[in-house]
Amino acid sequence: MQNDLKIYNTLHRRKEVFEPINTPHVGMYVCGPTVYGDAHLGHSRPAITFDIVFRYLQELGYKVRYVRNITDVGHLENDADSGEDKIAKKARLEQVEPMEIVQYYSDRYHYDMDLLNIKKPSIEPRASGHIIEQIEMVKKILDSGYAYERNGSVYFNVGAYAEKFPYGELSGRKYEELIENTRELAGQEEKLNSADFALWKKAAPEHIMRWTSPWSEGFPGWHMECSAMSKKYLGNRFDIHGGGMDLMFPHHESEIAQSKAANKGEEPVKYWMHNNMITINGQKMGKSLGNFITLQELFSGNNKILEKAYSPMNIRFFILQAHYRSPLDFSNEALQAAEKGLDKLMAAAELLTKLKPQEKSGFDVDHWIAKCYEAMNDDFNTPILIAHLFEAVRVVNSVNARLETISAHDLEKLQAKFKLFVFDILGLETESENNEQSALLDGVMNTIIELRQQAKHRKDWPTADLIRNELTKLNISLKDTKEGTEWFVDK
Amino acid sequence: MQNDLKIYNTLHRRKEVFEPINTPHVGMYVCGPTVYGDAHLGHSRPAITFDIVFRYLQELGYKVRYVRNITDVGHLENDADSGEDKIAKKARLEQVEPMEIVQYYSDRYHYDMDLLNIKKPSIEPRASGHIIEQIEMVKKILDSGYAYERNGSVYFNVGAYAEKFPYGELSGRKYEELIENTRELAGQEEKLNSADFALWKKAAPEHIMRWTSPWSEGFPGWHMECSAMSKKYLGNRFDIHGGGMDLMFPHHESEIAQSKAANKGEEPVKYWMHNNMITINGQKMGKSLGNFITLQELFSGNNKILEKAYSPMNIRFFILQAHYRSPLDFSNEALQAAEKGLDKLMAAAELLTKLKPQEKSGFDVDHWIAKCYEAMNDDFNTPILIAHLFEAVRVVNSVNARLETISAHDLEKLQAKFKLFVFDILGLETESENNEQSALLDGVMNTIIELRQQAKHRKDWPTADLIRNELTKLNISLKDTKEGTEWFVDK
Repeated sequence: MQNDLKIYNTLHRRKEVFEPINTPHVGMYVCGPTVYGDAHLGHSRPAITFDIVFRYLQELGYKVRYVRNITDVGHLENDADSGEDKIAKKARLEQVEPMEIVQYYSDRYHYDMDLLNIKKPSIEPRASGHIIEQIEMVKKILDSGYAYERNGSVYFNVGAYAEKFPYGELSGRKYEELIENTRELAGQEEKLNSADFALWKKAAPEHIMRWTSPWSEGFPGWHMECSAMSKKYLGNRFDIHGGGMDLMFPHHESEIAQSKAANKGEEPVKYWMHNNMITINGQKMGKSLGNFITLQELFSGNNKILEKAYSPMNIRFFILQAHYRSPLDFSNEALQAAEKGLDKLMAAAELLTKLKPQEKSGFDVDHWIAKCYEAMNDDFNTPILIAHLFEAVRVVNSVNARLETISAHDLEKLQAKFKLFVFDILGLETESENNEQSALLDGVMNTIIELRQQAKHRKDWPTADLIRNELTKLNISLKDTKEGTEWFVDK
Repeated sequence: MQNDLKIYNTLHRRKEVFEPINTPHVGMYVCGPTVYGDAHLGHSRPAITFDIVFRYLQELGYKVRYVRNITDVGHLENDADSGEDKIAKKARLEQVEPMEIVQYYSDRYHYDMDLLNIKKPSIEPRASGHIIEQIEMVKKILDSGYAYERNGSVYFNVGAYAEKFPYGELSGRKYEELIENTRELAGQEEKLNSADFALWKKAAPEHIMRWTSPWSEGFPGWHMECSAMSKKYLGNRFDIHGGGMDLMFPHHESEIAQSKAANKGEEPVKYWMHNNMITINGQKMGKSLGNFITLQELFSGNNKILEKAYSPMNIRFFILQAHYRSPLDFSNEALQAAEKGLDKLMAAAELLTKLKPQEKSGFDVDHWIAKCYEAMNDDFNTPILIAHLFEAVRVVNSVNARLETISAHDLEKLQAKFKLFVFDILGLETESENNEQSALLDGVMNTIIELRQQAKHRKDWPTADLIRNELTKLNISLKDTKEGTEWFVDK
């Protein structure tokens, strides 16, 4: 079964048979969140995609070490090494220590991931926890001659690298075109070439997050953390590197260049996997476009784009209905259609446990099982798997209505594999009463907050006060922030 | 109210008025777990103790930055700097990367803490994530002349330090006696003196967890992390340092020595707080004694010592029934007695919300409230607070049985403060989260219904419609009856 798995390798733009470097061990690294805000719809796709990969590889018997990082330093507002550190900026605005921001949003990210039934990775390293490893790697790149220091900062020399190695092999970009197309940005003066990128940045005096290094008190460039942490926990060369398509350039391309420069040209990753993006009603999601949706908003319905609240499993199923490499357009209609499908699937899962077998089967269970594996073996094709699952749903309903029969032996197999694919591999779960209550509470609270806003707006202070007082009695506090009003249950 | 708080300061062996260094800000550091095994009964006590401190300080209006670390490197099997690293050993035995052990047991620790309703700390730093900060501090101690290097390891020179500073001030041990009483152990040859302790250890070739430093590839001594991380997140001098009594020596004593040596003699901590230990049927808990109980075993009843499963709130209440500085003996009888007490308290909490007021009160609520605060202000005396709460329980039952009366004004105060002390400060919760959510949902829905009534009353139809529409989106219907408006979730 194992050697039937094929993975689309972005590096070679084709599906390839999956052969781990050191079978049955598999090393997998996936780019995690930069924790300076709540997880949004876009975060759910890589999380779910690589959760499926993790689950399916384990089902095939592999021992997977899954590393998913937390970026808590070095991710600047602008990809071209300029602008403020995203976390430091949030900390400055909220007047707290940057690590309080990191802790707060990491905890919230984990909470959302748990709701989506994402398995925890084997190791979840933080960039700020691996400064030494990053410094060591920068030293190696300097020693190899592919980097240079300027005023306490160290930059990767893309030109020197491109003479020896095929720079752009992952994203398909050409070095020559890159130079022509890169606009000059502020903070770029130190670079030999606009395509170069920072490995280490000297910290400006007001910059809080800083560490000593051989070059300056500063902080690592954003791309460094993934190269250093994947090397530390998975070795110079490992099996799978995953992330969103939007990270292919410059992030992953830079990772390859850094690792090859530091490790004598050894290709760091055997299989590169990239999930496609989610659009909203055909548009890219963005704060400036006004179509930005956090996961908590989805779960509570608290966003003007949303017609209603959608449960975590509804979101999960919606995402799995598309192949991870296909674009996926979010809309209320699509989510509501997914909800109906999920309900059918779950109803059948329950019915299946109660079916009564007959003498003979009118359904070829073994063939069905083979097709399910085939779908997953074909680059984790979850929509095809789901189509097969609905074939089984039809059979279940049909047997239940006594229009078809199934033998005891086949029923047992169908029960086992249906459960395996729905719950263990796709990671769906029955919605708990608790989640439902919590979603309702969220929704109702949003209505109250809206009512309070309106009351304040029309200067109806008695109503605004009544709301606050009633909530206080329930131990609920409100906090007005720039993004709107948040609520908390005081514990 | 604030200046009434007194804290027993282990450093001075007396209760002292709490005056934060930079009020209203409070910095608090508490030693967290070494994550190489499941959390056990012993872990629950410091977690709950300092959770109460955190909650009560917030109730008093302080802005608390609560730092609780995760020890993931440097904690050797033997306190005297010998033996294997606890996490590396577990990793070797299980044939995994040490950080997989760290991730696994950190996740499980968080899960247990959530069940015990422990609030998350503001920052939860890991030792392995702060190697640079530790190296920097070792450098400072070397520069000050209170440490020396031997074969790539760096040791704190207790003798040199004791000439200038009162070594042993926290634990009451005397330097001279320490030298006489310390047995010579393996791996101690490099030390000038057996009382010295490691700041940095050179890694043996087989040692996996290692970082480059000016002295060797190695790892920090166990005590270093707390000095370096408290300094980073709370400053050279901060308000409260907490931990179990068993950490007083050598861990906390060494922390003081390190910090003073690095920071020109500045006393790092204003108030040292130590919780006492838990014994089991009068014995110390230990793996070798066969009386070791993990929290998961307590919650599930799966340990031969246990007569039954005990809920997280049962454990929490049991621990709060003793003052944190008193020893506490675990037994089935004691836990079952706590369970009965908790049930009574919770029953009264519910009954209290339904009591009907009369004209006059036979109970002095203000005096009762003052006594509750007095108990907490007296070094967080939770058993006394609980005794006062049971006085209120008696009143609640008595009013309910019409044997006593309470006025509307007093009832409202009693309800608010009883709730505050039971749920917010002691952090008890009704057993099922689900019930809690459902109670909140009820409360919030009643507020919404009230707002709709008022809107209708003033003929504000847009608001009334908005409410109905928002609820419809959440699948909630309203039904107006003679007794008032009822609400339903449409299934």
